[in-house]
Amino acid sequence: MSTYTHLLLAVDFSKSTDDVVNKALALARAFETRISLIHVVEFAQVDLSNELVMPQELELDQELLGLAEGRLEALADKHGLGDSKRFVRQGSTKREIVNVAEQEKIDLIVIGSHGRSGLQLLLGSTANAVLHGAPCDVLAVRVRD
Amino acid sequence: MSTYTHLLLAVDFSKSTDDVVNKALALARAFETRISLIHVVEFAQVDLSNELVMPQELELDQELLGLAEGRLEALADKHGLGDSKRFVRQGSTKREIVNVAEQEKIDLIVIGSHGRSGLQLLLGSTANAVLHGAPCDVLAVRVRD
Repeated sequence: MSTYTHLLLAVDFSKSTDDVVNKALALARAFETRISLIHVVEFAQVDLSNELVMPQELELDQELLGLAEGRLEALADKHGLGDSKRFVRQGSTKREIVNVAEQEKIDLIVIGSHGRSGLQLLLGSTANAVLHGAPCDVLAVRVRD
Repeated sequence: MSTYTHLLLAVDFSKSTDDVVNKALALARAFETRISLIHVVEFAQVDLSNELVMPQELELDQELLGLAEGRLEALADKHGLGDSKRFVRQGSTKREIVNVAEQEKIDLIVIGSHGRSGLQLLLGSTANAVLHGAPCDVLAVRVRD
């Protein structure tokens, strides 16, 4: 049995994204795995007041999702991953990555791990959150901010 | 430049240890890396009262360290890693792994990631703690408890 067969590469479009992609590509080559891509758009609409969500906010969400799909496609093309399955989701980054990993029977999630400072130190990093919930192995690629 | 050159495999001698070792071996083969082993013995002596540490407690620590060295050597032999560098340290698991990773210029730490429940859920897992402090990439291998 292969060590890994299907890798999920989570990208956040930060400036270190290419480093994370290159690590994922090296692993995919080494283990001859399929590779799928995911990007999660955090909610734009914050509805703390429990009031009606305004139509223009819903439009903004749609616009952000459309933009993200375009960026993910461009990234895939740049790295020769044009045939890969791509997921753009909206919501909690951790939950969406874990959901797609379960649904697609992923055996390795590759994600960038940023240094933590300030508020992030209190909230915990995304990589840590994914590690906690993941149904499979997680490779956290250390990136410099 | 190689993706990875020197891998640090952290083992806790839980029943899933062989799974973690096998993942590390697969990666070491794929990337032709060196592989070093570490096991951390948590402190046996709890000196909350700030009183003198009794000699028999120091002896217990020495005995635990000696036992761990024997187990790590046996594990290395079993997996054909007899020539690997081995580290048995005493103290905080996270701190010792991060220290050795820095000292040995490790570029990938491989560590088992256990499910969290009860107290562990509050304290956070060792893999999470290592991920937070690590100077390099971390592969968390999901193991079933």
